[in-house]
Amino acid sequence: MLLRTLLPACMRGFCSPGTPRFMHKLASTKKPALDISGIYPPITTPFNDREQVDYAKLDENLQKYSSIPFRGIVVQGSNGEYTYLSKEERLEVVHRVRQKLPKEKILMAGSGCESTQATIEMSRQMAEAGAEAVLVVTPCYYRGRMTSAALVHHYTQVADSSPVPVILYSVPGNTALDLPLDAVVTLAEHPNIIGIKDSGGDITRMGLIIHKTQHLAFQVLSGSAGFLLPGYAIGAVGGVCALANILGTQLCELERLCVGGQWQEARKLQYRLIEPNAAVTRRFGIPGLKQAMEWFGYHGGNCRSPLLPLTEQEQKDLRKVFSSYGWL
Amino acid sequence: MLLRTLLPACMRGFCSPGTPRFMHKLASTKKPALDISGIYPPITTPFNDREQVDYAKLDENLQKYSSIPFRGIVVQGSNGEYTYLSKEERLEVVHRVRQKLPKEKILMAGSGCESTQATIEMSRQMAEAGAEAVLVVTPCYYRGRMTSAALVHHYTQVADSSPVPVILYSVPGNTALDLPLDAVVTLAEHPNIIGIKDSGGDITRMGLIIHKTQHLAFQVLSGSAGFLLPGYAIGAVGGVCALANILGTQLCELERLCVGGQWQEARKLQYRLIEPNAAVTRRFGIPGLKQAMEWFGYHGGNCRSPLLPLTEQEQKDLRKVFSSYGWL
Amino acid sequence: MLLRTLLPACMRGFCSPGTPRFMHKLASTKKPALDISGIYPPITTPFNDREQVDYAKLDENLQKYSSIPFRGIVVQGSNGEYTYLSKEERLEVVHRVRQKLPKEKILMAGSGCESTQATIEMSRQMAEAGAEAVLVVTPCYYRGRMTSAALVHHYTQVADSSPVPVILYSVPGNTALDLPLDAVVTLAEHPNIIGIKDSGGDITRMGLIIHKTQHLAFQVLSGSAGFLLPGYAIGAVGGVCALANILGTQLCELERLCVGGQWQEARKLQYRLIEPNAAVTRRFGIPGLKQAMEWFGYHGGNCRSPLLPLTEQEQKDLRKVFSSYGWL
Amino acid sequence: MLLRTLLPACMRGFCSPGTPRFMHKLASTKKPALDISGIYPPITTPFNDREQVDYAKLDENLQKYSSIPFRGIVVQGSNGEYTYLSKEERLEVVHRVRQKLPKEKILMAGSGCESTQATIEMSRQMAEAGAEAVLVVTPCYYRGRMTSAALVHHYTQVADSSPVPVILYSVPGNTALDLPLDAVVTLAEHPNIIGIKDSGGDITRMGLIIHKTQHLAFQVLSGSAGFLLPGYAIGAVGGVCALANILGTQLCELERLCVGGQWQEARKLQYRLIEPNAAVTRRFGIPGLKQAMEWFGYHGGNCRSPLLPLTEQEQKDLRKVFSSYGWL
Repeated sequence: MLLRTLLPACMRGFCSPGTPRFMHKLASTKKPALDISGIYPPITTPFNDREQVDYAKLDENLQKYSSIPFRGIVVQGSNGEYTYLSKEERLEVVHRVRQKLPKEKILMAGSGCESTQATIEMSRQMAEAGAEAVLVVTPCYYRGRMTSAALVHHYTQVADSSPVPVILYSVPGNTALDLPLDAVVTLAEHPNIIGIKDSGGDITRMGLIIHKTQHLAFQVLSGSAGFLLPGYAIGAVGGVCALANILGTQLCELERLCVGGQWQEARKLQYRLIEPNAAVTRRFGIPGLKQAMEWFGYHGGNCRSPLLPLTEQEQKDLRKVFSSYGWL
Repeated sequence: MLLRTLLPACMRGFCSPGTPRFMHKLASTKKPALDISGIYPPITTPFNDREQVDYAKLDENLQKYSSIPFRGIVVQGSNGEYTYLSKEERLEVVHRVRQKLPKEKILMAGSGCESTQATIEMSRQMAEAGAEAVLVVTPCYYRGRMTSAALVHHYTQVADSSPVPVILYSVPGNTALDLPLDAVVTLAEHPNIIGIKDSGGDITRMGLIIHKTQHLAFQVLSGSAGFLLPGYAIGAVGGVCALANILGTQLCELERLCVGGQWQEARKLQYRLIEPNAAVTRRFGIPGLKQAMEWFGYHGGNCRSPLLPLTEQEQKDLRKVFSSYGWL
Repeated sequence: MLLRTLLPACMRGFCSPGTPRFMHKLASTKKPALDISGIYPPITTPFNDREQVDYAKLDENLQKYSSIPFRGIVVQGSNGEYTYLSKEERLEVVHRVRQKLPKEKILMAGSGCESTQATIEMSRQMAEAGAEAVLVVTPCYYRGRMTSAALVHHYTQVADSSPVPVILYSVPGNTALDLPLDAVVTLAEHPNIIGIKDSGGDITRMGLIIHKTQHLAFQVLSGSAGFLLPGYAIGAVGGVCALANILGTQLCELERLCVGGQWQEARKLQYRLIEPNAAVTRRFGIPGLKQAMEWFGYHGGNCRSPLLPLTEQEQKDLRKVFSSYGWL
Repeated sequence: MLLRTLLPACMRGFCSPGTPRFMHKLASTKKPALDISGIYPPITTPFNDREQVDYAKLDENLQKYSSIPFRGIVVQGSNGEYTYLSKEERLEVVHRVRQKLPKEKILMAGSGCESTQATIEMSRQMAEAGAEAVLVVTPCYYRGRMTSAALVHHYTQVADSSPVPVILYSVPGNTALDLPLDAVVTLAEHPNIIGIKDSGGDITRMGLIIHKTQHLAFQVLSGSAGFLLPGYAIGAVGGVCALANILGTQLCELERLCVGGQWQEARKLQYRLIEPNAAVTRRFGIPGLKQAMEWFGYHGGNCRSPLLPLTEQEQKDLRKVFSSYGWL
């Protein structure tokens, strides 16, 4: 039912370094160069008391994630506080994660910058640092001029030069900009653009994207655990979910139930994840996510400023959400 | 899997006139007084050249709908142009539809007004005119003060006095107001409030409503054909869909596939309905819906002013949507 | 500097009953049929304990307003809870106010309904009930189709048949719809459309409307006390201000200072009105306005349901706003 | 009437290098360390064909601006495409502008970054590069958590360590975030935060900010030419206006008329600037601004990608706006 069953196993590693991998995606077969179906945690970046990246803690989190059947890891999605990292830090984190991550897992790295040129350069360097794919957020500061034409131009230039496949990333909650549907459909034709992480939560739009690109084997990932089941139901192939930083096993179980057609059981599990997910995303943001990670045995810690830690009351409210659903 | 299988058959007709039917819904069993699962067209109101209600055309439309396995008919949902009808016209249309509608079909009548008192009165009169249930839109003009408390108070008063079950109606596209989730959950406890038509399209919210009210057998209807499949997947029991005015048979088929667990086939059908649905709702509105009805053998005709008929170009664009998906 | 100085005195009373007054506005001179410059309270509607209109209290409020140099009174603007009144009540209130109002004061009556036909009829009946002008709010329920073309058509039909001048009314806070600038400019050419009450608060837009219609002597009224001074500065001729129900004398004083060019003093007064105004509009709505009226010696009382009275805490917060600025 | 008349002449140059200048703002007198009243063009950044900064063209633009009575120049406001510049480029441009700018003119440099630490560092370096003040945009990517508390913390840390005065910068059109009023009022108490550039266009809010901070001599600059007159009328002390890149002389003339109390003439000039201003900001963005600069004898040129140049039709439409108001 899902793309996964139609696609070859992950083709990671087939390409010689330096060669753009999209050349392996032949227009005739429309088979993607990289099967990205599955669940991904968009990992957070641990900091020490001086707000420096704490690589030891990062390693320990990765170690714990290694026993969960994730398809891979997203580094520097929005939850990675990438906008607070220097260019050097962004690359170093990717480099470090690739070293620690099991070979068969995909490392998807957020390489989006505001300018096209910077995004091109960052994508190349992230590929060099070991990313199997880059996740490219919509540039948004000049959103009044970020028309479909401008965004198609931007992504095409990035994809033309990226050594690894490009995954579009639309996250209106942060960018206040939805990558327009017509731009997505146009870009899906590019041989090096293989999918989209859609975090907007508009399930009708997701259905239309999947329908209009299905001849291209374009892969749609739900951008949040809140609509993972509906996403699978309408044809998405997986999810990049903040909640996977905490309840990764459960999200992989939800994936298994959906892919296996056990919808009734899937529904029961999905119900128990909606509010916890909302709590660590929309409601309490990354500070909430990092706080909850501590309770579940991971290293969370503080965010970089200006993101403030939760107040005591917020901590209580957050904890109550997880305990009321039986997760704590 | 769906509520339908857990519930008694429709209890319509069991109540003596004048007796509030909600008394038949016992708190202990939490079984609803009325099983509303299924597909409903929110019918349009045909007008003649002088903008008067054309009852003959209305009858003919109903006659055609009678062969489609709808669960019932919604009269004076948003697509019925109810805000353009006088109080007398609203009641007369309901009366007429009830006369023509087969007995086993549910007539759900939109009785919402801005004031609580007017809504109470309209609900009572619509029940007298033959409605099995009333669909009560959120009052919205003073939206800045339409807090959860105000809306809970409003709906409670309406439900307390309504002789027939009440169905909440949240349609932010028209009201610019979402009935808050906490208000929905509180109101679901009322014995005479049996469900909600949610037209906002936020599937995560729908999932949460269903989860938080499932011990009450509260029934959730998708308010648009665009997310009918995801709605069923997450636990909705049916849909009130503008598109059912045109492609009613297909929507009932989609219902059958979803309820029967044939998700792969359901998905194919759902895909073909998203854009046609968007065209007769968000994109071209009621003028688009009425125009398309003409092409499918129904009486559509013009709307009351200030709703303008489609321009020639809009007609072409609309037709193209239906033909490109093989419906025309 | 202001239109007032360029215009003839109010022409009210020059027209024989039944004759559309706009015929007196000659295209060649572009002089409006009615000089509406000045300050207006959009009066609230007092109700008794059974939510019935309390005409005796209404009379007493009017009696108190008669000593304030208002240009006139607005009946059934948004603050009049007109959406909660029956058609009969709307007309009866207008009739009553006209009887009590001094002859030289303008009665501007809100006659807007969702449908064009109902608005036409209501406008005619309000003129018969004694209104010198009608204030016509944008129809908004089907806002997706309320294009400039639809709104121009609507207002043109209304203005064509209205016996008294029409004033456009754009109040996006309630309607979630801004009457588009191009529609305003087009409609300003109609001989029977003499002005606009703009409550959106976009001072740039107000400036542009004034500029693009100044050859037509189209009159712009600020729709809130919060930007009354900037409105005068950019060329508005007055204001319809909820706050005038309470601090009418002060708003007329602010008018005097602005018209007289005493900007420094005007600014001091304007500053003291912004937060009290926000408190009885955006923040606490009509329940706040009615509560404050009680403190200032007017009859406020409760609103019709679903508008709830202020909570005790809200009352305290509201009172604090007025006392902190020295008004209580 | 305006702050300018109450304040000492610009105090620039009184401070020894390396000493935080805010120490010169004594709490007792509440006189700001820097009088920023006046008009500023937020200059664009010229690029050559390879998208590199073209310093020669930058010099020529500055040369032309030197004859206009601007109070100073803003470098790397939103119109400077600062989000597309590297850190090194940002500093180099500021350095270059300071070298070329007449000594008596203020150089206000945009130093905002997403993280507090990066903003602190950038502010320090911009001061070293010659900026008299830094303009700090609201961090916005995690806008759901950018509460008043977070933003007060952010700006306080930045202002504590900045060697030059800090000016707040709220530009919701780009950031989709309004710096909350209560945060502005709190931050105005900081001795090193001397003003705000408010580009939101909400004149009521501007009035309230001015009122609530007037005991602190906090200086408010209108962030757009569209509401420059209303801004002066309500107590703003100047403006940072994209349009000043083109019609600088006219904006300084408008300033002169407003400051001198010649409101009627001011109004006539303001009217002629609203649409041209909208055209080079909201409507056509920086590509429009740069295109128009070419017509007025400045170096505009292309933007960095993903900002596309205007289409031919857009160029025509833009030109028509300027010619219809007699500017071309």
